[in-house]
Amino acid sequence: MPMPTSHDHAANDPNRPREVLGSLHLDAGSGPGNGHQGTQEITIARARRSDLEEIVALLTDDVLGKDRESDAADARYLEAFTAIDGDPNQVLLVALADERAIAATAQITFIPGLSRGGALRGQIEAVRVAASHRGQGLGRAFFEWMIDYCTQRGAAMVQLTTDKRRQDAIRFYERLGFVASHEGMKLALPH
Amino acid sequence: MPMPTSHDHAANDPNRPREVLGSLHLDAGSGPGNGHQGTQEITIARARRSDLEEIVALLTDDVLGKDRESDAADARYLEAFTAIDGDPNQVLLVALADERAIAATAQITFIPGLSRGGALRGQIEAVRVAASHRGQGLGRAFFEWMIDYCTQRGAAMVQLTTDKRRQDAIRFYERLGFVASHEGMKLALPH
Repeated sequence: MPMPTSHDHAANDPNRPREVLGSLHLDAGSGPGNGHQGTQEITIARARRSDLEEIVALLTDDVLGKDRESDAADARYLEAFTAIDGDPNQVLLVALADERAIAATAQITFIPGLSRGGALRGQIEAVRVAASHRGQGLGRAFFEWMIDYCTQRGAAMVQLTTDKRRQDAIRFYERLGFVASHEGMKLALPH
Repeated sequence: MPMPTSHDHAANDPNRPREVLGSLHLDAGSGPGNGHQGTQEITIARARRSDLEEIVALLTDDVLGKDRESDAADARYLEAFTAIDGDPNQVLLVALADERAIAATAQITFIPGLSRGGALRGQIEAVRVAASHRGQGLGRAFFEWMIDYCTQRGAAMVQLTTDKRRQDAIRFYERLGFVASHEGMKLALPH
């Protein structure tokens, strides 16, 4: 009788129910070419395996990302997803329009540390808003939600690094209250 | 009959044997006022609870740290230590001279991610070298060891942020091959 494999684990089940973490209410009238009134509801949920291809497509559809991502079918993405999904200090998020299409994604890492009186930090990485959902205030609302989520989980600080070539992103983060007090230094390792 | 509490867990046992992860060999002759020849051996080990007070003292003995750390007896440090120690993606390191005195400390966080082809990153934080052990090449040797350790654990990148006021540190990291390609942005949250 075959033993169940690790692929049977619920964490990797593409059909598991959505774990909804929150929601955003955007003014639908503020979107370009969006004539109708009212608000659009965006659901924030933990990503599941069936979201993986769409998330990788979002990471690739980016001026800096297009040259450094490979085919979404690459096994390394599934391996990384499994590592993120199994780590209680990692949260890979999707922002869903109509509870279906992925309008945005981001990853939060919670880092316990001794510095600053034993402060927990929330670190935000790999933020992308789908081209179809830009200019509607989603990026700002999503970030405000993530900052609030980090606060709820007990973080004393939210941190991120952003490529110095992304001047618009730096101004966006400064408007949210972030201060560019640090150099973000990277060292690529040989494969 | 009382149930065992979480404080009985081996991870918090100050008397558990040292988990040695590696060693450094420094040219003892290069230290100021150090007349004798030969090499000094430094042991790299995972920090244990009995190291906590000394590590916090190192974090405090710093031009930027002195105003933001509190009494090492503060319960928040023990809480943070327990969180770090129980997380397989966290490694709190001590570099030991004579297998006893803490000559340096650092924390590495391993962050799985989807970006850059599902790359694992090693993030280094809270690096301090004891005043008594500066100017002997320990900082550089410790960093080279940590970069090698991240490579062994499969990381494709090592990253850190450093306060822009630490100009000497920035040059030190650049000599190790780090590139200041990113802005390190921080947002303090209300307590």
